[in-house]
Amino acid sequence: MSRNVAIMGATGAVGTEFLELLAERNFQMDSLKLLASERSVGKKLKFAGEEIAVELLTDDAFEGVDLVLSSAGGGLSKQFAPAVRKAGAVMVDNTSAFRMDPDTPLVIPEVNPEAIKQHNGIIANPNCSTIIMNVPVFPLHKVNPIKRLVISTYQAASGAGAAAMEELKVGARAILDGQPFEPKVLPHPAAFNVFAHNSAIGDNGYNEEEMKMVNETRKIFSCESIMVAATCVRVPVMRAHAESINIEFTNPITEDEVRDILASAPGVKIVDDREGSYFPMPKDASGQDDILVGRIRQDISQPGGNGIELFVCGDQIRKGAALNAIQIAELL
Amino acid sequence: MSRNVAIMGATGAVGTEFLELLAERNFQMDSLKLLASERSVGKKLKFAGEEIAVELLTDDAFEGVDLVLSSAGGGLSKQFAPAVRKAGAVMVDNTSAFRMDPDTPLVIPEVNPEAIKQHNGIIANPNCSTIIMNVPVFPLHKVNPIKRLVISTYQAASGAGAAAMEELKVGARAILDGQPFEPKVLPHPAAFNVFAHNSAIGDNGYNEEEMKMVNETRKIFSCESIMVAATCVRVPVMRAHAESINIEFTNPITEDEVRDILASAPGVKIVDDREGSYFPMPKDASGQDDILVGRIRQDISQPGGNGIELFVCGDQIRKGAALNAIQIAELL
Repeated sequence: MSRNVAIMGATGAVGTEFLELLAERNFQMDSLKLLASERSVGKKLKFAGEEIAVELLTDDAFEGVDLVLSSAGGGLSKQFAPAVRKAGAVMVDNTSAFRMDPDTPLVIPEVNPEAIKQHNGIIANPNCSTIIMNVPVFPLHKVNPIKRLVISTYQAASGAGAAAMEELKVGARAILDGQPFEPKVLPHPAAFNVFAHNSAIGDNGYNEEEMKMVNETRKIFSCESIMVAATCVRVPVMRAHAESINIEFTNPITEDEVRDILASAPGVKIVDDREGSYFPMPKDASGQDDILVGRIRQDISQPGGNGIELFVCGDQIRKGAALNAIQIAELL
Repeated sequence: MSRNVAIMGATGAVGTEFLELLAERNFQMDSLKLLASERSVGKKLKFAGEEIAVELLTDDAFEGVDLVLSSAGGGLSKQFAPAVRKAGAVMVDNTSAFRMDPDTPLVIPEVNPEAIKQHNGIIANPNCSTIIMNVPVFPLHKVNPIKRLVISTYQAASGAGAAAMEELKVGARAILDGQPFEPKVLPHPAAFNVFAHNSAIGDNGYNEEEMKMVNETRKIFSCESIMVAATCVRVPVMRAHAESINIEFTNPITEDEVRDILASAPGVKIVDDREGSYFPMPKDASGQDDILVGRIRQDISQPGGNGIELFVCGDQIRKGAALNAIQIAELL
């Protein structure tokens, strides 16, 4: 069985991580094509000790390709999906273009791997905040159905791309040096500041990032009744998101039960040292595959014992994007 | 009526702000004494264009003093409270020493100014996160009693003192320069990271900072039935805390009602521009007296209409500490 792989958007933050992970995981391939817009054509990227030149992204570029890893923006995913399908390839799409399309599976391999089978040439990779929350939350939901989630996020600059990460560094240095600084990539200064996620806000007052956490969670869990209230906030961190998660379960649940379930949950690492005050932190989650989970405690505001609070942290570029997509490809 | 004022802990982050605010607000005084430990004695601090030498903090130092603004640590507040009382002075205490003492009023002037009358020589200033939350939350509670609050904080380095603020800067520069960095004041690197508030964790899994938000809110509101679940997190910001607040009210409430109430609430400024993606940010709240409130929206996870979500931001040193204490003194 031949496996010819193409990456759309190979020069971005997630694209770079695709290359790193394919090498790190020794992903079996016969060929690897890097596709991008005209601006990047001819640029050479390193892969497993070799250099590969970026080729132009066109309909014809997918001929002979079996697997497309896409992270070039929703518009390009939509534009090239017909060509991918025509070539008989499967696109694992990291953009939001097809996530809520009823014919496209939306997959976290630890949660709903079986959904992959229903694919129609495209499998969507969920939003980063959704993945990072649900890797630890789903195993709990399976045992004791969740009624409601209240989440506040602490999101890294990487979610806005490599240029935003660079801007965070440049802005931090400017502020430390007492120099003026005007952001160009992010809507507000990121360094020494926090701000609401700047995706468009709908009529209900929630922004798109927040609604992704609501709608994608329902689709991935196959559970339309789960209630989700999210507040998505950008913090001055490079590449790992943190999330404060308050859960209301259908039935009472103890802290020990939660620990037991999470201890054997795939993709989860418990980091919960109360005496040493050591809990999940972006600095530790960065570059890691696992979602770190800590601050596990019974919610004192739900006296019936149906509530649990968690603080989780995961690498936004890795499990929040590139790793999840490659895990989907491995399942294929 | 004479008014002789003493500041305990004048060289710290909050002490410095006491001096700035007393001058800025043209606080009427006959004399001002700066008291500190031996280490700082003789050090000169600027006040309203003059220099005042720091004197040694002893029992005798309070003779003739009418008002003590204290921010030198809970141990010292407890140690010197008898001398303050003996001198016939009133101590407005910014530490946690007396906050939960049933004989000591715990006061946010915008919330429970009447409680001041019950004082027994000491009036306690609440925890910074508690003040910043409750200035906008109490006016809503007054109209429609709150059943439950779920809060996640984004707390600035200033809450851990001036040395922590300096460490955040030094650590940020080290990381930008690719240099090794070991924190000494804070338990973890603060720059480009977030971590759980490192106050001691009790048997229920909540840390002291979180339990302050529970217990102090109940005392200030005179409402033992209000349920509070808090997750307190340190973010790399200098001096303004942000908080994501999810509220469950007794009765349904609309977004417009909330806006109306907050528009005339003392100490509150609405910053809620959905189209311009402009909401409360630490960079704007720093140095401001008002608590900024935005992201005002009906909670979609409470379909009965009893839920509201807010994102608030306030200067930790100012309204979170020094300003609130001086407003209490002004009420006296």
